[in-house]
Amino acid sequence: LATRLQGIPPTIFSEMSALALRTGAVNLGQGFPDVDGPPSVIARAVAALEAGGNQYAPGLGVPALRQAIARHQQRHYGLELDPDSQVVVTTGCTEGIAAALLGLVDPGDEVVVLEPYYDSYVAMIQMAGGVRRPVTLRAPDFRLDPDELRAAVTPRTRLLLVNTPHNPTGTVLTPEELGAIAEVAVEHDLVVVTDEVYEHLTFTGHRHVPLATLPGMFERTLTLSSAGKSWSFTGWKVGWATGPAELVAAVLAAKQWLTFTSGSPLQPAIALALDEEADYPIRLAGHLEQRRDLLCAGLTEAGLDVRVPEGTYFATADVSGLGWKDGLSFCLALPERAGVVAIPSQVFYDDPDGPGAGRHLVRWAFCKEPEMIEEGLRRLKGAD
Amino acid sequence: LATRLQGIPPTIFSEMSALALRTGAVNLGQGFPDVDGPPSVIARAVAALEAGGNQYAPGLGVPALRQAIARHQQRHYGLELDPDSQVVVTTGCTEGIAAALLGLVDPGDEVVVLEPYYDSYVAMIQMAGGVRRPVTLRAPDFRLDPDELRAAVTPRTRLLLVNTPHNPTGTVLTPEELGAIAEVAVEHDLVVVTDEVYEHLTFTGHRHVPLATLPGMFERTLTLSSAGKSWSFTGWKVGWATGPAELVAAVLAAKQWLTFTSGSPLQPAIALALDEEADYPIRLAGHLEQRRDLLCAGLTEAGLDVRVPEGTYFATADVSGLGWKDGLSFCLALPERAGVVAIPSQVFYDDPDGPGAGRHLVRWAFCKEPEMIEEGLRRLKGAD
Ligand SMILES: CSCCC(=O)C(=O)O
Ligand SMILES: CSCCC(=O)C(=O)O
Repeated sequence: LATRLQGIPPTIFSEMSALALRTGAVNLGQGFPDVDGPPSVIARAVAALEAGGNQYAPGLGVPALRQAIARHQQRHYGLELDPDSQVVVTTGCTEGIAAALLGLVDPGDEVVVLEPYYDSYVAMIQMAGGVRRPVTLRAPDFRLDPDELRAAVTPRTRLLLVNTPHNPTGTVLTPEELGAIAEVAVEHDLVVVTDEVYEHLTFTGHRHVPLATLPGMFERTLTLSSAGKSWSFTGWKVGWATGPAELVAAVLAAKQWLTFTSGSPLQPAIALALDEEADYPIRLAGHLEQRRDLLCAGLTEAGLDVRVPEGTYFATADVSGLGWKDGLSFCLALPERAGVVAIPSQVFYDDPDGPGAGRHLVRWAFCKEPEMIEEGLRRLKGAD
Repeated sequence: LATRLQGIPPTIFSEMSALALRTGAVNLGQGFPDVDGPPSVIARAVAALEAGGNQYAPGLGVPALRQAIARHQQRHYGLELDPDSQVVVTTGCTEGIAAALLGLVDPGDEVVVLEPYYDSYVAMIQMAGGVRRPVTLRAPDFRLDPDELRAAVTPRTRLLLVNTPHNPTGTVLTPEELGAIAEVAVEHDLVVVTDEVYEHLTFTGHRHVPLATLPGMFERTLTLSSAGKSWSFTGWKVGWATGPAELVAAVLAAKQWLTFTSGSPLQPAIALALDEEADYPIRLAGHLEQRRDLLCAGLTEAGLDVRVPEGTYFATADVSGLGWKDGLSFCLALPERAGVVAIPSQVFYDDPDGPGAGRHLVRWAFCKEPEMIEEGLRRLKGAD
């Protein structure tokens, strides 16, 4: 195994989904819905399959999709993008992250990243030879402390890797928090890569603001998103990177060698989703909010201390009230004890025992049908 | 742009396909067919789209596809693979190459590679920090010289990157040539990564032999292939890597962070293709052979010196007989002069003026309908 991959464990999501399959547990781990997205989108993919959409798409992505992405950014955020130079289609946001880090980070460059972090960030920072500088969104309220952010920036900082709405905590960064990020980025002339895949999945009282819309930010911000979460097609892996032409070109420069292109017949279907199913993610967020409440109430009843998330698919709970000091042990025992799978948040920290960190935290997905969440809760409450 | 990407030009295939679109030229450049694969395979993808195959596939690939890949290797080559540890699904062979190189090559490691080389090999060797050591299949007959291969191996050699049937030359390595590769690999205890995407597309008198089937080779060989070329679905980007568990694990270790997974609804359709459309690639090879002959005869009539390929989608011709010493100038002028796009082979060489190298060579794709090939030839002959 090459050095760049040494010491990186397999993604926790594969591990835990395999455990769920093996034990027949209710899977409240990996974030994917159990109901697919709009039939009209499926119908458009079927039409593409049946009418010659099966050969290589251009490396940038099919023009109709790039144009629809540009319209989406305009409609929702007032951003005007040139679909031919400021948009590139990726194999989900995962490939966007990989290509952005391989395309922008040199060995020794420092990357400031919000902690707890999605596991691919850490793996790709290491693969790019970067040095991560985590800034912890501290438990129990998971807010960004601008002073900690400032303290993490050094002369070696190359980029800030942000994620809002934030996985796993469910925090939606506020305009003030985003403003602090922008201030630091502008002051130190940094590039910002922001993973906004949960952009539409926010709950009452919370609103997603793209970093790219802040003053001075468009020209330094690479925004990553995807259709998987917003339109409930996580397996299609159609994502995109948008931003100034130089940053988009850096993503394309790496991505053309990672996959070249992907999902030709799925791309026009996502174009249709963006244009004609614009309400779907809004409705989905409404349903998710109810399921969030169902899950959070149930976890509380089961004796866990829960932080009610502001967005995303996930709620985070402290399991120490149940007598478990270690979320990983809790999650490894849970399938046997209760027939439920959840994700130990500690794998998303450099030091799970650091200040405000999460050895005792567990992430629960509520992007599932209410019956499934209820079944998971029933099992949890019935556990020994 | 990160250092690892500096000096790497955009993939020639994107460049030339964009030129074809812009000028309305007949595209005999990028290798993709203009007729899609079997309707039964499309129908299976439609069924998956309509019946819940739309969320994340496992990182290794859906079990049905991994099992079908194992059966394919058994049926065609007598290789017995464990579908759970010796097979991983990738986003086309491109991702297999990227993940293999990122997963196996450390900075400073040398990679012996057949030249002319597919452009992603060079880019990914550079991105992995490797040092390429080309072994030229010398024009005009493009055979492997075992002595040159031996001479390219040093104590720093980490792996041999092979491609057979070979793009762009159309060479199908003979059992003797493969034997020489195996001898070198075993003697120096090297890993071999072999791109065999044209495995089924060989012509009368030539037969593909997988390197993994040679004595002493299975345990050191990572075989990459894909469904794109064999079943005429290049845009689906469903490929795979097979071999001993440690090498497959190295691919997975990298790939889980590059895309995680892709094409969920397309994976079961390719499983069906492998099992139930096993004859399709054989018939396709028959059709391609006729189109190869059509193209080669036409190019010869047009005054080019053509090497008749033994496999793949491509024929290589010397354009110096037409007065062009430089294939790149020829290809850049061709859309205007004749309304045809072809690929300048010189971009696939370290030194296009080296011994047996290809400044004067141009690659022509014949994976197109006969009418398209005829139209291309008509235009070429009518050029000023
Ligand atoms: C790419 S697998 C993980 C899915 C996901 O986004 C999550 O569960 O956090
Ligand atoms: C991945 S684009 C190039 C297609 C191809 O294999 C070729 O034309 O050589």
